[in-house]
Amino acid sequence: MPYGKVDELAINTIRTLAVDATFKANSGHPGAPMGMAPVAHVLFNKFMTFNPKNPNWLNRDRFVLSNGHGCMLQYALLHLFGYALTIDDLKNFRQVDSITPGHPEAHDTPGIEVTTGPLGQGFSNAVGLAVGQAHTAAVFNKPGFDLVNNYTYCFFGDGCAMEGIASEAASTAGHLQLGNLICIYDDNHISIDGDTKIAFTEDVMKRFEAYGWHTLWVKDGDNDLEAIEAAIAKAKEVKDKPSMIKLTTTIGFGSKLQGTGGVHGNPLKSDDIKQVKAKFGFDPEKTFVVPQEVYDMYHEHASQGAAAEQEWNQLFEKYGKEYKDLHADLTRRLTRDLPEGWQNKLPTYKPTDPAVASRKLSESVLEAIHDVIPELVSGSADLTGSNNTRWKKAVDFQPPSLGLGDYSGRYMRYGVREHAMAAIMNGMSAYGTIIPAGGTFLNFVSYAAGAVRLSSLSHQRVIYIATHDSIGLGEDGPTHQPVETLAHFRALPNMMVWRPADGNETSAAYYMALTSKQTPSILALTRQNLPHLECSTIERAIKGGYVAHEDQEAGLTLVSTGSEVGLCLEAVKVLKEQHGIKTRVVSMPCVEVFDAQSKEYRLSVIPDGIPAMSVEVMSTLGWEKYSHEQFGLNRFGASGPYKEVYKKFEFTPEGIAKRGVATVEFYKDVKPLRSPINRAFTQLI
Amino acid sequence: MPYGKVDELAINTIRTLAVDATFKANSGHPGAPMGMAPVAHVLFNKFMTFNPKNPNWLNRDRFVLSNGHGCMLQYALLHLFGYALTIDDLKNFRQVDSITPGHPEAHDTPGIEVTTGPLGQGFSNAVGLAVGQAHTAAVFNKPGFDLVNNYTYCFFGDGCAMEGIASEAASTAGHLQLGNLICIYDDNHISIDGDTKIAFTEDVMKRFEAYGWHTLWVKDGDNDLEAIEAAIAKAKEVKDKPSMIKLTTTIGFGSKLQGTGGVHGNPLKSDDIKQVKAKFGFDPEKTFVVPQEVYDMYHEHASQGAAAEQEWNQLFEKYGKEYKDLHADLTRRLTRDLPEGWQNKLPTYKPTDPAVASRKLSESVLEAIHDVIPELVSGSADLTGSNNTRWKKAVDFQPPSLGLGDYSGRYMRYGVREHAMAAIMNGMSAYGTIIPAGGTFLNFVSYAAGAVRLSSLSHQRVIYIATHDSIGLGEDGPTHQPVETLAHFRALPNMMVWRPADGNETSAAYYMALTSKQTPSILALTRQNLPHLECSTIERAIKGGYVAHEDQEAGLTLVSTGSEVGLCLEAVKVLKEQHGIKTRVVSMPCVEVFDAQSKEYRLSVIPDGIPAMSVEVMSTLGWEKYSHEQFGLNRFGASGPYKEVYKKFEFTPEGIAKRGVATVEFYKDVKPLRSPINRAFTQLI
Ligand SMILES: [Ca+2]
Ligand SMILES: [Ca+2]
Repeated sequence: MPYGKVDELAINTIRTLAVDATFKANSGHPGAPMGMAPVAHVLFNKFMTFNPKNPNWLNRDRFVLSNGHGCMLQYALLHLFGYALTIDDLKNFRQVDSITPGHPEAHDTPGIEVTTGPLGQGFSNAVGLAVGQAHTAAVFNKPGFDLVNNYTYCFFGDGCAMEGIASEAASTAGHLQLGNLICIYDDNHISIDGDTKIAFTEDVMKRFEAYGWHTLWVKDGDNDLEAIEAAIAKAKEVKDKPSMIKLTTTIGFGSKLQGTGGVHGNPLKSDDIKQVKAKFGFDPEKTFVVPQEVYDMYHEHASQGAAAEQEWNQLFEKYGKEYKDLHADLTRRLTRDLPEGWQNKLPTYKPTDPAVASRKLSESVLEAIHDVIPELVSGSADLTGSNNTRWKKAVDFQPPSLGLGDYSGRYMRYGVREHAMAAIMNGMSAYGTIIPAGGTFLNFVSYAAGAVRLSSLSHQRVIYIATHDSIGLGEDGPTHQPVETLAHFRALPNMMVWRPADGNETSAAYYMALTSKQTPSILALTRQNLPHLECSTIERAIKGGYVAHEDQEAGLTLVSTGSEVGLCLEAVKVLKEQHGIKTRVVSMPCVEVFDAQSKEYRLSVIPDGIPAMSVEVMSTLGWEKYSHEQFGLNRFGASGPYKEVYKKFEFTPEGIAKRGVATVEFYKDVKPLRSPINRAFTQLI
Repeated sequence: MPYGKVDELAINTIRTLAVDATFKANSGHPGAPMGMAPVAHVLFNKFMTFNPKNPNWLNRDRFVLSNGHGCMLQYALLHLFGYALTIDDLKNFRQVDSITPGHPEAHDTPGIEVTTGPLGQGFSNAVGLAVGQAHTAAVFNKPGFDLVNNYTYCFFGDGCAMEGIASEAASTAGHLQLGNLICIYDDNHISIDGDTKIAFTEDVMKRFEAYGWHTLWVKDGDNDLEAIEAAIAKAKEVKDKPSMIKLTTTIGFGSKLQGTGGVHGNPLKSDDIKQVKAKFGFDPEKTFVVPQEVYDMYHEHASQGAAAEQEWNQLFEKYGKEYKDLHADLTRRLTRDLPEGWQNKLPTYKPTDPAVASRKLSESVLEAIHDVIPELVSGSADLTGSNNTRWKKAVDFQPPSLGLGDYSGRYMRYGVREHAMAAIMNGMSAYGTIIPAGGTFLNFVSYAAGAVRLSSLSHQRVIYIATHDSIGLGEDGPTHQPVETLAHFRALPNMMVWRPADGNETSAAYYMALTSKQTPSILALTRQNLPHLECSTIERAIKGGYVAHEDQEAGLTLVSTGSEVGLCLEAVKVLKEQHGIKTRVVSMPCVEVFDAQSKEYRLSVIPDGIPAMSVEVMSTLGWEKYSHEQFGLNRFGASGPYKEVYKKFEFTPEGIAKRGVATVEFYKDVKPLRSPINRAFTQLI
């Protein structure tokens, strides 16, 4: 179908909406929306299937704006196609409590698939969305029931192309042969510092070819709608490779400053806006104008999407008759509820069970539950044998042609690509049918910090299996021993950091991680063996903190996590026998969950009247919130057998006891000695 | 020169030392040393110039083992060539307090240039070392005085090749046309998860070509020493591109498990060791054997290196006669001292000076001092205009052929590559003649967390200029607003996190960052304007915390940083006028530096007897150490004009006062009310 006046009008409507919204906000990025409006028009109106009235329809095509600063492009499209985003929402661009924030946020705005803006993330999320599609299709599609066949489209710019995370994700996508992924590279030669030639002279297409991608080039992305359409059509035909379309565009097309950095991150000046509007045939004096024929065209496309969903619903109903269990499974997955009774599979332990490393306990959980939670997809960033992330009968998620697995496989080989792993997991989670879990050493979760942050911000149920959680990893030494990491992620809102002390606590961590539909988790797990505690149960541990050893006459509470809880229990004996101090011990596997308990409960765990001392073999930062004194490691660790390393830093029953005595002595005279749980005021949350 | 028996003997000595050391430690990675011994032998003995008796000689060739887990390779070489690393040190591999830790640490071991192990870091450091060489040569070399002409060599494996940081660094190095950089890719088809084909099927050579690298392939890296030599020689000839030599090797060469993941991360079994030694002509019963002819050959090469240094010293002395100032400058730089009196250039401010954003104050510092500190090299990850990192007359560090600058330029265009920027800065700092400073938004310092950690661990004087430090950035919203970031880096040992409140504090932050020879700094700077404080001076601020507003009759201390200090000073009025509470205000721009002050001083700042409340518009985590109560932001921010956002979260004089009143009320009955500075015991540091 040839393109005509109304197409042009639609494109220019998108451009002028972006111009008006950024001008009104006096903030934002008009350049990318103006440059990418043509491809957005062609993609959304010619290729993408979606129903704006139900943004959650499973088989919709996914769109990701990885250069999220250009979000006025996306907001304009969502409005024009009839999503629940009004013209007033566009006028409220970048205002407090609007649904049109400065960068797209999936949980705020209908039609936004993933939260983008931090560069490279969206691109990597798109790989995850494509993994999600491929996996879901492999599991659920049946002859005559091509239930899940959507594409994932992604726009990205030079910034994303430069980010390492996107390189990792692109290499992964090429390896995985994700033919359902089509990424459009906005080659506009401009980044914030100006012409990309000052820092970015590589051959991007050749690089993507090296990764195993199918590449295409549209030389006139500003005007040649037919070429854009042909390229996307061609990309869709290539089924065994992801496609990258390099689209050469002019940033800020239409502005007097087009093609320069001047239109990247600043609104256009008002005289420039007038000439832009005049040039596009719009009234220079009017703002936020949408010609009716543009609405009409887009609403027509939207209604085709609604019809497609309708048809799909019928197909799915029919599917339910032939494949009852699969139908029920998929229906359930979309609610994010877990199968009834799954938690009965969680392993439990007695104190007499042999000591075992919590990374192995985690493996036992995965072994026990993977059958009952089919949406659980595990993986590792090339540390499978160390992270213990793979159940015995796992099949790898691999392109069938490699002979190493297939797309129904539930084990991801992420390679040594921690940051992309995290962002791909965010995308997999956002797809809606998968709970991703991925392993690396706790220290290298920091490599993924940018994406971990977005797990939290965008409410993704992603599980980070973070083994080798302390100096307890021993010989690998300070380069691998986390010290600051737990403080970092405990400071991150909407993140559960779990550091279980034994088997029951590890099961509890998984229970909470899997049932918290809107919150990611980091499970910090040991390399070294841990004894099972006398008092631990799943029920107690899911409160985040509980009394692991009670003594009504105690003069001291030790508050500890993970591998140090067992040490504290040994310290109790030393304190009593050598110093006459009776001591309580609190195990606090997850402070975030503990914080959510009633004040009454929290005070029963860390009571008034006696001092509390925290014991954790890493930075003490933050422990003042739960204790009067802190014993930790505010320096880097050391390379050596782990017991030697613990000894070097006095993390022994005697070392704990010594500090416990000092703590009791120090607080003798303070009246009233309040529990740190008592606060003068509560934080706004 | 043809290779003979003694070469083979040397190679096998390296291999057996690695086998023995990992076996004795019962831990470590024999596979990479066994596979890379041939190339290491050729490189060190045929190409590299160094003097083991003076590992700090400026013009030595640099060697980086990016696959740092293979460090027994490097330790063996250092020992054999005569560095201060004994055979007993090899026997102490991976033991507590040895100089042969599990991964190479530059500050522990003579001859180790940079701290590696976390994958991708060493490769990126090597790019920084090459930048250091190119820049130093461009500044100091003169006709007849080719003073600085060393090469940087780097070994890296599949793990590094997969890491995003290495992709970023490789793209940067290609752009910069660093002909002095030669990287050897250990193509052994094995990573921890097994065959690389499970996750890594890209064409690595093609990718490097896309980045603009010169590539070579040695197909038999196990045996073909001549081909290795020819490839390195060829790489040295290419002066306008970095070179990557793909070296196909057999991991664990000689072991019964050679070529498999079984030799990657575990010591060989004792029967395997015996057959390896027998195969290599070594006595299977003896350990840590070094044939005398191997020592002799390597010591001969070392003495040539010593002679080369001697010759260089003479050249440098002669240079001093012709280029007195340059000679003095370079001599001084190598001491890491700054030029005398430089600090007099630091801007100072009066309270009546106009309010200005601290990112602009930072720019004023750079403008003022760049002339007197010639070793300062600034840059940004594509946010120059936002980070304000570039002084007006700065020349870009660029390959001359692009016409955009030259190698003497002191401004780095890192591109949107935060992680590589940080690691490249670590390498530049390690080169010894440069103080690197690099900018990005504070939120995206998290992208660089892996390398920032190594700045701290390896004692590099690197300055992170981290602007847009809070919700005060406004419209860009939660994706860009740091909340957890300061807690993260405050928990990192040997890192100064500065959050200056005004002009004098910004100058103080630079003073400390530049004069702390062994400690990196993060300067968290505002986008929004800040007033200058009544009481701030550089002298006060360099104590990390000081009294910004005193009141002898105060009932409350507010402890604050950066943009919130001014708000606290306004809250003082509200507290007095509306609530009758007299209030002190403490400005605490750097808690790490404050911690280093005497207890007496710290208690004078946060005294006993009255409660203290912290005020910082991000996670409260850690502030309990300096205050009884905390007002912060334990959630994500919001997109909107910054004043609106501050108001939403009650970060206003009234909001602070309200919480101050609650704090005073709450602590009324506690006797004695101790300052949080008083502790029961001190941490081991
Ligand atoms: Ca661009
Ligand atoms: Ca390898």
